[in-house]
Amino acid sequence: MPRYKLLIEYDGSDYVGWQRQANGLAVQEIIETALKKLDPGACFVRGAGRTDAGVHASAQVGHVDLNKVWRTDTLRDAINAHIKPEKVAILATEAVSDEFDARFSAKARHYLYRIINRRPPLTFELGRAWLVKRPLDAEAMHEAAQTLLGMHDFSTFRDSECQAESPIRTLDRLDVSRVGDEIHIRSSARAFLHRQVRSMVGSLEHVGSGKWRKAQLREALEAKDRARCGQVAPAAGLYLVGVDY
Amino acid sequence: MPRYKLLIEYDGSDYVGWQRQANGLAVQEIIETALKKLDPGACFVRGAGRTDAGVHASAQVGHVDLNKVWRTDTLRDAINAHIKPEKVAILATEAVSDEFDARFSAKARHYLYRIINRRPPLTFELGRAWLVKRPLDAEAMHEAAQTLLGMHDFSTFRDSECQAESPIRTLDRLDVSRVGDEIHIRSSARAFLHRQVRSMVGSLEHVGSGKWRKAQLREALEAKDRARCGQVAPAAGLYLVGVDY
Repeated sequence: MPRYKLLIEYDGSDYVGWQRQANGLAVQEIIETALKKLDPGACFVRGAGRTDAGVHASAQVGHVDLNKVWRTDTLRDAINAHIKPEKVAILATEAVSDEFDARFSAKARHYLYRIINRRPPLTFELGRAWLVKRPLDAEAMHEAAQTLLGMHDFSTFRDSECQAESPIRTLDRLDVSRVGDEIHIRSSARAFLHRQVRSMVGSLEHVGSGKWRKAQLREALEAKDRARCGQVAPAAGLYLVGVDY
Repeated sequence: MPRYKLLIEYDGSDYVGWQRQANGLAVQEIIETALKKLDPGACFVRGAGRTDAGVHASAQVGHVDLNKVWRTDTLRDAINAHIKPEKVAILATEAVSDEFDARFSAKARHYLYRIINRRPPLTFELGRAWLVKRPLDAEAMHEAAQTLLGMHDFSTFRDSECQAESPIRTLDRLDVSRVGDEIHIRSSARAFLHRQVRSMVGSLEHVGSGKWRKAQLREALEAKDRARCGQVAPAAGLYLVGVDY
């Protein structure tokens, strides 16, 4: 069966997350339902990142096996036609070898977290960013963030229901920068623990607001204790923005 | 009565436009309702631009007369608290003299029109941009747009229900540029006719797609005939982004 790689964009606001669940509509399910209309034999779309409810993607990657060979543009347009009117779009499709696996072949995952740092409530960005009203010091956040880089036991920044066997991960990037009244936190790693980015961002917010000294972020990491996580940032600000293979 | 200038942001998707109407909720009405809770004497908020249903603003300007003097930050936060949960926010307030009029004192109005030029359907930008699937030549659009600058009879690009006494306006800016898969059209004038920007953008799209030669835009202007307008671009792509005083 020919295998296709899918580049996927979605506004996660209305969905229970990437993965199929009993309690609501999942992005994976929306794409699988569309694919079954094109190819009743299509069964399973595997994604690179199992984004949570409310988390967005500008470049999620998935793969699927189909029964026939498609022109890639035709396949993209046909899936999109069947996805309508959901807020999920296939940006591109690519024929790949059957050794390609969207999840297991991934060499790096890139996330963006958006904080909007202002007093007025959100309008356009409601559900698409975290509104933080107290002033944040992005430089202090960036400096503290650098102490999390490298290979560590990230138990502090791991959801209690995380199913990964090991809490050890290697964090390659955690950059904090201010763009007008937005604060962008860009994070990259081969793989992340469940809610790791949101847990790191929530704790970084404490550094930015002055509630934590910079050193407290590293101390929280070293404690390897979930209770020491500052807070978990809301899903709405998180975007899966790239996967490297 | 002390007068305040309001800087206003809104996602116009769910509203009938700026101005109060019988058929649904208007942005003006949302702000007036919030103000009456703070000051029962507050009656009328005048806006710089009467945006249509579905049109957005990142920087609409209004003014209102209140019975008492407010600290500007307190006033902003208090109005916003009463506006909730509508997608309308007061970004800033400023005490102004009673000679200031948001509409009549305006020296220039600035609009941005966003086209997203790609095949896949919109997700994040649904309701916030015009999706055009055929490839557009932004440079050709920009070149043609320059022929509309200056003082002209804009009857071709004026809604049949426009209530302005004269169809003569002076267009100061109509710039078209490509930013990735987006095309931004920035337009400035002291004042615009009803649906003038959307009518110019709709016609520019014909130039970009090759349906019109560049010269046809100027020919349409010179015809002074509404029937010669190419098409009216959807409200969703239009943003009032600034007003000068």
